[in-house]
Amino acid sequence: MEITPLQRIVAQLTESEAPRVWSLLVTAFGELAQELGDQISGALLRQICELIGIKPEAMRVALHRLRKDGWIESKRCGRTSNYGLTVWGRSQCVQASPRIYSRDPIAKQTWFVMTDPTQTQTHDVSNGAWVTPNLLLTSCAPKNTDAFLTLIGANTQVPPWIRSKLCDRDTIARSSELANTLSALQTQLKISPLLNPLDVTVVRILLVHRWRRIVLKAPILPDEVFPETWRGSLCRELMFDVLSTLPKQGLRVLEDAAASPKPHYVRAN
Amino acid sequence: MEITPLQRIVAQLTESEAPRVWSLLVTAFGELAQELGDQISGALLRQICELIGIKPEAMRVALHRLRKDGWIESKRCGRTSNYGLTVWGRSQCVQASPRIYSRDPIAKQTWFVMTDPTQTQTHDVSNGAWVTPNLLLTSCAPKNTDAFLTLIGANTQVPPWIRSKLCDRDTIARSSELANTLSALQTQLKISPLLNPLDVTVVRILLVHRWRRIVLKAPILPDEVFPETWRGSLCRELMFDVLSTLPKQGLRVLEDAAASPKPHYVRAN
Repeated sequence: MEITPLQRIVAQLTESEAPRVWSLLVTAFGELAQELGDQISGALLRQICELIGIKPEAMRVALHRLRKDGWIESKRCGRTSNYGLTVWGRSQCVQASPRIYSRDPIAKQTWFVMTDPTQTQTHDVSNGAWVTPNLLLTSCAPKNTDAFLTLIGANTQVPPWIRSKLCDRDTIARSSELANTLSALQTQLKISPLLNPLDVTVVRILLVHRWRRIVLKAPILPDEVFPETWRGSLCRELMFDVLSTLPKQGLRVLEDAAASPKPHYVRAN
Repeated sequence: MEITPLQRIVAQLTESEAPRVWSLLVTAFGELAQELGDQISGALLRQICELIGIKPEAMRVALHRLRKDGWIESKRCGRTSNYGLTVWGRSQCVQASPRIYSRDPIAKQTWFVMTDPTQTQTHDVSNGAWVTPNLLLTSCAPKNTDAFLTLIGANTQVPPWIRSKLCDRDTIARSSELANTLSALQTQLKISPLLNPLDVTVVRILLVHRWRRIVLKAPILPDEVFPETWRGSLCRELMFDVLSTLPKQGLRVLEDAAASPKPHYVRAN
């Protein structure tokens, strides 16, 4: 049986780790239906899952979980259902989107924050990482604090024992794997571009999902303070480049493609 | 019995704490005989001690200790002895002098040095203070280190919990006492200046001794990072002002004064 170009790419993008279905569907909703009122038909979801190799039963279980957890809601529409993000689910996607889709890193500066070791800490750490119980690196300076605060300048070396505590090893390793995968994919797509809107969308979802699992686990800090083996900066660059060759498809185009047996081709833009 | 102006000043300068004789003699040698080959006669030392209220026996014990500890050496000279600093004793005085006599603080900058908490520290701390076992503030950046190093800029607030660890409370309290004493003395000397070279010298020695016991116990760091109650900067200013009204007397002038029963007056300069 001949393998299609899409099947080869899907295999490449899932070989290191099969994505969890419910988590991948969150990525799909964030990618396709983040606008207020956006709905994805059950038929379109099924086709996307099928192209990724997810069985219908696994998709149904995942949709059930996402509904139960408050991510999505479904609407009956004749004999089928449409699915959309809830207000809360949408707010989660909107919050994460700049970190996932931005061409440039979100964090522009690093504050070195050392708190009194004899006091209990109450600082918000959403934009940084604790290196020790009283040393925080963050891109957003805490206010009203009695901590020692200093901006890490361009001439200041951040030693390896600090860098190594900012991000877990798995995330660092994944950034390296994704950079390699993206680099190979970039070459491949130049030789044989994907033209079918569903194919394009499937690859976008898988790419965004891989990157999302890295970037949302890493602290919001400039790339310079990460360990030397961090490839986040390269991933961001390659993601932007590869996604620009896989333009985002409108929901209507996708629904038409899902409803029709004929192949639909991506409009040049 | 009438009290002389010198006796009043000596009482003021020793009321908070009677100086240890051997330590005061180190100050005297540093003040009077720091040049290579300088010698102080036993007679001059006795008169200085007498004016301060130190008994001859206490002086003899202190001189014995200083000889034993390698600070000074004595030379017989007819029926009396002369005393001078040893090479080591002189090197100690030469090293301490800039900190004691400088009009301006020695330290111009503060480095914030955070070392890896999991490693044993080997940094030299002569120019700074450890705030925690892995946080050092120093005016002299360590080299070849894997510590996190940053210069504390003018806009950076050093919080009280760091300031409070830089210098012991006694030293801080002494700086406050000395500033008050100096301030009162400044006024007093304007009204009734000291004219006798021995009187001038005795007051200089007592002042330098008080200040030496503060400044050599404090870390070599800019005044800005000390606790708010530190009066080192004011002490330095007042010391400079008061000492300039009590000009340093040459050893020959002092030896003549000690050898002669007539009062010798300070030359105007």
